[in-house]
Amino acid sequence: MRIGIDIGGTTTKIGLVENGKVTATTRIPTTGHADEFAFADALANEALRLSSNHQSPSTNNQLQGIGIGAPNANQLSGIIEKAPNLPWKNDVPLARMVEERTGIRSVLGNDANAAALGEWCYGAGKGMTDLLVVTLGTGIGSGFIVDSKLMLGSSGNAGELGHTTIVMDGRDCTCGRKGCLEAYVSIRGLRETYKELDGDPDVLKEEGVLCIARAAEKGDTAALQTFRHAARWLGVGLANAVAITGPERIVLFGGIARSGDLLMVPLQERFNEFLLNIYHGRVDLVTSALPEDDSAILGAAALTAI
Amino acid sequence: MRIGIDIGGTTTKIGLVENGKVTATTRIPTTGHADEFAFADALANEALRLSSNHQSPSTNNQLQGIGIGAPNANQLSGIIEKAPNLPWKNDVPLARMVEERTGIRSVLGNDANAAALGEWCYGAGKGMTDLLVVTLGTGIGSGFIVDSKLMLGSSGNAGELGHTTIVMDGRDCTCGRKGCLEAYVSIRGLRETYKELDGDPDVLKEEGVLCIARAAEKGDTAALQTFRHAARWLGVGLANAVAITGPERIVLFGGIARSGDLLMVPLQERFNEFLLNIYHGRVDLVTSALPEDDSAILGAAALTAI
Repeated sequence: MRIGIDIGGTTTKIGLVENGKVTATTRIPTTGHADEFAFADALANEALRLSSNHQSPSTNNQLQGIGIGAPNANQLSGIIEKAPNLPWKNDVPLARMVEERTGIRSVLGNDANAAALGEWCYGAGKGMTDLLVVTLGTGIGSGFIVDSKLMLGSSGNAGELGHTTIVMDGRDCTCGRKGCLEAYVSIRGLRETYKELDGDPDVLKEEGVLCIARAAEKGDTAALQTFRHAARWLGVGLANAVAITGPERIVLFGGIARSGDLLMVPLQERFNEFLLNIYHGRVDLVTSALPEDDSAILGAAALTAI
Repeated sequence: MRIGIDIGGTTTKIGLVENGKVTATTRIPTTGHADEFAFADALANEALRLSSNHQSPSTNNQLQGIGIGAPNANQLSGIIEKAPNLPWKNDVPLARMVEERTGIRSVLGNDANAAALGEWCYGAGKGMTDLLVVTLGTGIGSGFIVDSKLMLGSSGNAGELGHTTIVMDGRDCTCGRKGCLEAYVSIRGLRETYKELDGDPDVLKEEGVLCIARAAEKGDTAALQTFRHAARWLGVGLANAVAITGPERIVLFGGIARSGDLLMVPLQERFNEFLLNIYHGRVDLVTSALPEDDSAILGAAALTAI
């Protein structure tokens, strides 16, 4: 039995994971606490309450660990490093803080790496030695399993596929540089492409990318083109990642990946086109098979399973 | 005591490696043998002869392994896979063939990975957990040390940084695709850039890149620009590799890296510019410190040290 915690900008979800399934969940607000210590207190209490409520004395299901997925989390140091979308502007050593309050081994990891571990432990990449998991949402997150281990890099920051440059002197990215994959294939990126293609301004009155997907399904040319362009940029980015790390499979995850055939059909085509010939037939591209609501919790729990 | 073998298109070099130094060398031609079996016979004989000639009976320096670096070699399978620049057009399981003939554990690896291991075991990346070694020559080779192991990927082909796309729909590459880093920053790539910049045709009458370097040192504008362009393309490619794998250091190696400040000064600048901010101050860029003549042999020997 493990606990998986997914820290988001407004809500923190806590789930109990047994045999690769989420069996109970609860949540606390991420914001509104006096400081990070008060947040850690609330988080530790809620986690312990959840596990003791579901611990059956007759079985041997001890709590083996608490895994915490958060943006800007460094797994090597166990610290959330100045996260722009979280309430604490300083470094928060949350792994240690939760471990001290619960007495249970606690592991912190960034949410993209947690997603990768979730797919590797419980999802579409189960048991593979080399795997790439890419989360397509507000930003692009990515986690690489290399030789049956999560690749962290020397400073714990490896796996930033979203910030590889795919167009030199291209679009401005939120990271301050230009031409990053994320500037083209995130929610913001797709909306910008739709605008550049003179799409219907009414469509963009709604937030997110679902509005563009719906327009595409109705035959809106700019919307269809938006997904084709995204497929081309993402195809290059993924093929580059394959050339470097050589995974057996790529799993796509997150809001944009759920646009289904609109993205996946042109993406498969572009990906094959950009893929180095030695990889043809040696790497496949799939969307996540994990239940949408549970995946972040499963991924966080998987942080403690390694 | 280990043996390192470097198989080139015309000559195969064999060296004895003791305590991180090459203490004796010999060579045989790569071409002119009846078939791959005859080549393996000659190679095994010469390797055994070299080691027995230098084995002192008084010490304990047993031959611990034979490492073989070759183009198109797959370390996972131990096979040289249809190498276009070697005499054998079929797959050659050279690791097994040499091991059968010598009775000594033999490991085959591609030459770029061998170079990476050489730097990691004996050179500028000694003891680092995460390292990237890039060979800049006829092609671009690269080898990644990830978490203190050579990254091979699920099919043994990882580490093809030279075939990441840096310019979509860019120059034709020898791999059949377009816009690969290798099409811009190999010897052929630099010569092509010099041509595109309307450089002096007389300069290119000589082969290689040394002729362009010499022209640059004399103030030839196109030649200076050639190195500045190369630095920009390579800067993007290296920064992308860092974003994905997070090494502590990048070691550059091979003929183009030996152009010194002509490449390195603009490269340091461009690399910093393209580098994701979290890596500033966390990764450095150096040229190889290994003796030029010995590095391929040291690298091959290092294949057996892991």
